[in-house]
Amino acid sequence: MSDKGYILKEADLLPLSIGAALLGTGGGGNPYVGMLRMRELVRKGAEVRVIPAESLADDAWVCEVGGIGAPVVGIEKIEEGGECYRAMRAVEEAAGVKVSAMISAEIGGSNSLEPIIAAALAGLPVVDGDGMGRAFPEVQMTTFFIYGAKAAPAAIADDKGNVVVFKEVIDMFWLERFARTVSVDMGAAAGLAIAPMRADFVRRTAVPGTVTQALNIGRSVLDARTRRQNVVQRVVAEAGGKLFFTGKITDVRRELTGGFARGHAILSGVDAWAGSEARIAIQNENLVLWVDGVPAIMVPDLIVNLELDTGEPITTEVLRYGQRVAVIGLPAHDLLKTPAALEIVGPRAFGYPELTFVPLDGRPIAA
Amino acid sequence: MSDKGYILKEADLLPLSIGAALLGTGGGGNPYVGMLRMRELVRKGAEVRVIPAESLADDAWVCEVGGIGAPVVGIEKIEEGGECYRAMRAVEEAAGVKVSAMISAEIGGSNSLEPIIAAALAGLPVVDGDGMGRAFPEVQMTTFFIYGAKAAPAAIADDKGNVVVFKEVIDMFWLERFARTVSVDMGAAAGLAIAPMRADFVRRTAVPGTVTQALNIGRSVLDARTRRQNVVQRVVAEAGGKLFFTGKITDVRRELTGGFARGHAILSGVDAWAGSEARIAIQNENLVLWVDGVPAIMVPDLIVNLELDTGEPITTEVLRYGQRVAVIGLPAHDLLKTPAALEIVGPRAFGYPELTFVPLDGRPIAA
Repeated sequence: MSDKGYILKEADLLPLSIGAALLGTGGGGNPYVGMLRMRELVRKGAEVRVIPAESLADDAWVCEVGGIGAPVVGIEKIEEGGECYRAMRAVEEAAGVKVSAMISAEIGGSNSLEPIIAAALAGLPVVDGDGMGRAFPEVQMTTFFIYGAKAAPAAIADDKGNVVVFKEVIDMFWLERFARTVSVDMGAAAGLAIAPMRADFVRRTAVPGTVTQALNIGRSVLDARTRRQNVVQRVVAEAGGKLFFTGKITDVRRELTGGFARGHAILSGVDAWAGSEARIAIQNENLVLWVDGVPAIMVPDLIVNLELDTGEPITTEVLRYGQRVAVIGLPAHDLLKTPAALEIVGPRAFGYPELTFVPLDGRPIAA
Repeated sequence: MSDKGYILKEADLLPLSIGAALLGTGGGGNPYVGMLRMRELVRKGAEVRVIPAESLADDAWVCEVGGIGAPVVGIEKIEEGGECYRAMRAVEEAAGVKVSAMISAEIGGSNSLEPIIAAALAGLPVVDGDGMGRAFPEVQMTTFFIYGAKAAPAAIADDKGNVVVFKEVIDMFWLERFARTVSVDMGAAAGLAIAPMRADFVRRTAVPGTVTQALNIGRSVLDARTRRQNVVQRVVAEAGGKLFFTGKITDVRRELTGGFARGHAILSGVDAWAGSEARIAIQNENLVLWVDGVPAIMVPDLIVNLELDTGEPITTEVLRYGQRVAVIGLPAHDLLKTPAALEIVGPRAFGYPELTFVPLDGRPIAA
């Protein structure tokens, strides 16, 4: 990758969407529709350059966008495509600045493609990085907000022409609250843009290189399939992860409450895990994996379910009885594991006060 | 009243609040707290002039404001006082205009005082009129929206510092939807300002003279009490209404759903109505009165419950078993009875498809 980055080609979109689905840790929505939409734009001549944050001037403005709503809805309610673009234009106007680049709130799931589509519509580049390095269910759960991004002005747009600006908002939790209920009003599928951030701030706080990471994971999956290799093993190797469980789903519970899909899945072990039982807690994403009652992986580390035989990432909304699943764990980026970050994206933030975060990679956590 | 109107004096505030409570037809929230707040402002030197819409230049901008939220909450959650003022400033900025006067969305209940408080804080006059001539539960139920006011930009502000701008909104129903859920997030008590309207439009569409009407009704109530006259009879005479029922409340049901207080009250007749039973349907306000199963008064005409012995208006949230009540009917303004208006504020709009509106005053309805 040169300093100027690279242009996304049509052939990149499928692997990007596969890698993004995997990094979605079961949530983030399926990127397939966004991939198709972006493919249309590329075929019509759109060129989006993926650039490292380092290539931007310190005082350039970067706008973080993402779709907001419950992924369960996302399956049936197809976004019109311009939601994030219109939300970005509204924050540009509200903040009185000109945006130079887009960045993804979350690389995991459909929000990997959202800023790329908005960038294509705006004729802007997209920064190689994001605010989560995975997917999380709530707006404030980004490294940007954890490290001090302003909660306002932000804006949300739908497919019908509605645009709502969060002009003054006390903090990121209030932004999440307002954006969530307005997105539910909008039919639980809308585009959210947060206040433009300066490039030097984005450089310090974004999880770096995640667009390229998703692309590389997706390429490995496709390559392994072509070569008839074991996709799960190949993904574990490419992503630097570890296999934690293989099993068959015996129970799935999901409820759509307050704009979130909450629930859990129970797996009965197969192969090396025969006789064991695993449980995965879900709030849009996979939050915690217990194996035989012992916590094995927990947020912010990534819990990824792959179809055991094909290596296909399984999103929480398509989990079903009888599926054979490999559960792999990937270490979260260090920016998500500081004490400040764990306050927002650690197990306690998700309602598990009894769990103390133990990082998968065993590395000490910076203060 | 001269062309230039009159300044509201401290002694006007109590009668204004009494008259406004009565015009609230059981809803609109209790104006008492707003009255106390405005009294403080007047004592500190605030002067608010009540002006006829005719005194404004055609192209002056008028801003309609009102509190939004469930009145049941309003009892306990006291507004900070600057909500409507901050919402007005936000729409001024969003619309890029300078507002010359405030006007009330609804003269009935606490929203009689809201624009007056905002006007005091802004140093502006308030127009003698409003968008309902009474109270209604939803944002779009004003003569302004019925006759074509724009749904955006509008803004909502709370007591904590949050300001949300509805920048582009498809129509007034979407505005109601967004404003309602954001107001619930804000704790079900917030100030809403709608897009500034030109004075010539306000002149054509506002229910005229309602601030003065509320003031005069309140003065009659106070005067009747001083003279130990029958307050109910005096109010009926002053407001041009008719007594429809006297009874004792035998059942009240109220539920707070989706930001509204919905329910009904059952009354067992006394005096001339002994042996009869009345039922009043409620959605924040009194919607329909049935006497012995026959519809007697229905929206948009006003159904007002007064305490039988004191003539005190009874809001729906304080209705209780055993209260002795006089139910009076007041004719709505003609602007609320056109076919276009009945679409929005007639019985069908409130979920009574079986009821055809029959006006209390028997006057033909203009097309």
